[in-house]
Amino acid sequence: MAAAGTRPIVIVSNRGPVTFAVDDAAPDGVAARRGAGGLVSGLGPLVADTDAVWIAAAMSDGDRLVAERGVTRAEGYRVRLIDLDPDTFTDYYDRVCNEALWFVHHGLFDPVYEPAWPPGWVDGAWAAYRDVNRRFADAVIADAPEGAAVLVQDYHLCLLAPQVRAARPDLRLVHFSHTPFAPPAWLRMLPDEVRLDLLDGLRAHHACGFHSSRWERDYLDSCLDADRAPCATFVSPLAPDPDDLRATASSDAAATARSDLAAVVGDAAFVVRVDRIELSKNVRRGFQAFAALLEAEPDRRGTVVFGAFCYPSRLGVPAYDRYAKAVIAEVEAINARYGTDTWTPIHYDPTDDYPRSIAALQVADVVVVNPIRDGLNLVAKEAVLLSDRDAQLVLSPEAGAWEELGEAGVWEADPFDVGATARALADALDASADERARRASSLRAAVAARTPAHWLDEQLRAAEADPS
Amino acid sequence: MAAAGTRPIVIVSNRGPVTFAVDDAAPDGVAARRGAGGLVSGLGPLVADTDAVWIAAAMSDGDRLVAERGVTRAEGYRVRLIDLDPDTFTDYYDRVCNEALWFVHHGLFDPVYEPAWPPGWVDGAWAAYRDVNRRFADAVIADAPEGAAVLVQDYHLCLLAPQVRAARPDLRLVHFSHTPFAPPAWLRMLPDEVRLDLLDGLRAHHACGFHSSRWERDYLDSCLDADRAPCATFVSPLAPDPDDLRATASSDAAATARSDLAAVVGDAAFVVRVDRIELSKNVRRGFQAFAALLEAEPDRRGTVVFGAFCYPSRLGVPAYDRYAKAVIAEVEAINARYGTDTWTPIHYDPTDDYPRSIAALQVADVVVVNPIRDGLNLVAKEAVLLSDRDAQLVLSPEAGAWEELGEAGVWEADPFDVGATARALADALDASADERARRASSLRAAVAARTPAHWLDEQLRAAEADPS
Repeated sequence: MAAAGTRPIVIVSNRGPVTFAVDDAAPDGVAARRGAGGLVSGLGPLVADTDAVWIAAAMSDGDRLVAERGVTRAEGYRVRLIDLDPDTFTDYYDRVCNEALWFVHHGLFDPVYEPAWPPGWVDGAWAAYRDVNRRFADAVIADAPEGAAVLVQDYHLCLLAPQVRAARPDLRLVHFSHTPFAPPAWLRMLPDEVRLDLLDGLRAHHACGFHSSRWERDYLDSCLDADRAPCATFVSPLAPDPDDLRATASSDAAATARSDLAAVVGDAAFVVRVDRIELSKNVRRGFQAFAALLEAEPDRRGTVVFGAFCYPSRLGVPAYDRYAKAVIAEVEAINARYGTDTWTPIHYDPTDDYPRSIAALQVADVVVVNPIRDGLNLVAKEAVLLSDRDAQLVLSPEAGAWEELGEAGVWEADPFDVGATARALADALDASADERARRASSLRAAVAARTPAHWLDEQLRAAEADPS
Repeated sequence: MAAAGTRPIVIVSNRGPVTFAVDDAAPDGVAARRGAGGLVSGLGPLVADTDAVWIAAAMSDGDRLVAERGVTRAEGYRVRLIDLDPDTFTDYYDRVCNEALWFVHHGLFDPVYEPAWPPGWVDGAWAAYRDVNRRFADAVIADAPEGAAVLVQDYHLCLLAPQVRAARPDLRLVHFSHTPFAPPAWLRMLPDEVRLDLLDGLRAHHACGFHSSRWERDYLDSCLDADRAPCATFVSPLAPDPDDLRATASSDAAATARSDLAAVVGDAAFVVRVDRIELSKNVRRGFQAFAALLEAEPDRRGTVVFGAFCYPSRLGVPAYDRYAKAVIAEVEAINARYGTDTWTPIHYDPTDDYPRSIAALQVADVVVVNPIRDGLNLVAKEAVLLSDRDAQLVLSPEAGAWEELGEAGVWEADPFDVGATARALADALDASADERARRASSLRAAVAARTPAHWLDEQLRAAEADPS
């Protein structure tokens, strides 16, 4: 058995660190560029320019060309892309991952009406999820170096392990959930067969990891409820990369964005949120709390601007379209009711502009992160590292990051309690300079305690935890 | 310390066993009649014509007259009614009990949008709940006989115990939840203060009882999550009273209803459900499953009638109005799509007619009970005792009754899985006479194992469980 850190590494995730465009001018017919997304930006730098193999789905025509070539070097990575049938991919990704698993793990269903699995869902959509997982397992079995630690990422890929373990007993398998995990009452909303497939798939790993002990306990409770022995578990929250953040914060684009924001905010206090418009992020109740504050304390009007940098997400999915509309209606109603010729209460900006988001976090007085349920919420931690102004963090206990930050100086925002969130906002805005400094410093220490390297090390250590 | 069964008994519940109308012709100015409702019909006969004192809220003008008189004998009961301020009662009953606690315990919120506790909810509605509970506690303290076992019923009355224990250490306090109990993820949707009030109120009892070990575990998990030691717990499902059922089944009204139904059903197989139109009962997905069956197997058309005896409930509450509309739209769409001149697939009857409901259960071939979450569901057990035709029971694992009946011959209906529910319906309809008889006999034995007296005994025994 290899010691931790000496095994070859294989990363397995739905989305890879590099994406390829067909380019007839390029010597190998494709042009590579680094991909985006939370998982890739967190994990990517840790394995770039190493021998680690990264297995992911082909997403573009260029990706599909590369998929035929086996393990391919590009942009510092060794990637192995898997060409999947587009209809199968749609069933797997849209119907199962986005519309079923994401919903149960985040508790987003309106249970009186949804889910209502139609006849054929298990034999159709769920069979596609099984197929895709089988294709990933085939790739791991074919391409993982002898004795590798295979780090399987997220809820897209829960069913690989039994097949891989049977064929490749030399490998060590770790699964990591970037989402929360559904407690029994929510996991039971899945068809029985699906629930048991997931739990059986997960427990075939040597260990399963979570961002928070809350999600670890929900996983263990769901195992108990289904009468399934769990595998070994570990808790290992991801951390932002401070160098990376500093690089963006000191870029010209961020500087320009800061002066644009200064013109918007003027002398007012600046409350900031940076989110996808995602059902779990609770953007709407955040605005309702802000409105409640303006309503209860008219003296606040004109003294504070809420900068909401919320870019659309999963458009075309009816629940997301409906929510985006409700969010925008809320913004318009609040701005119409409280705004004046010289003051717009909510500065709503739906552009997905990373340097602008970083700039907003730099100059925020208060940052709001109030999800109803959230695997970690890296923005909360980034905000702490980026702030030039001892930004106060208004944080929901339902974010995974609460476990590290809840006792370290945040202002608590119960996500379902508009009144309590309004009070947290007021308290954060009213804190004295001393209190702001004290809280911000405590938060910086809590966030700086971990780097992305800790997270990778802990996955590798977890690979050795279970001797079986 | 008194032995179990020798203590005086005090029942405490929101609704009492007798209600009074102002009647100037009556010698004491009021006319009494026995009340209705599941709790009263289950518990009532057990304590009628005993010395037990039943404490409840005054609901009518006649009740309010009686409230002034202290403990009053009527219809075989000794009742003590509490006159509450109507606005306070509305806040307590509508805003807290029906719109908050019922929703969290049954998991009925659409969490992306609801709840969103407005500022003032805790100081307003929740304060009313506290007030009402304090008034009940005052009555217990004043009127409970020395050393009594005080049996507090349901989620309306969770906060009595600390006050009662402090003032009357001679009493033994038992709380029984007729609903499910919210697991941590749902109980956390309440404002923090409310959640802790509830858990602190409950654990001041000598024991807390539940219909199913599922709800007991959810209670224990919620205590753990809130870092609160639970009190002793017990599981004690309520049972129907067979004599009571037989009396109604052999009434003239039931006989008339049976011939009316025979005319509706003819030679077709008869699938029956009897429910309030309650969000938790899952009436709509039941119809969707029936439609899926008619769609997939056209030969079924004309051979089966779904008798849905679903009477409206909580009209005026927007979520209930919306659901009732959706249910009726579903029925109309199905009848329009599959019905013929001689056959209406769903016979939908919204009248609340108890003998008719009993009659329908007597002549049903299949009874459907598919709630998304339900404390017990006494109808499932009543159906087993009432059937003249070895009725097959299609039952959701999310009903508390599943614990007693799940292994005793039911057909499993996953409430969120329309496809699986359609298969369960088909299997139940297609079972051979032998299999029907075998399953029905096993179910009868499981149901007959308990009577209402067991339930009362177990509460009294639980009163002695905790020596503290």
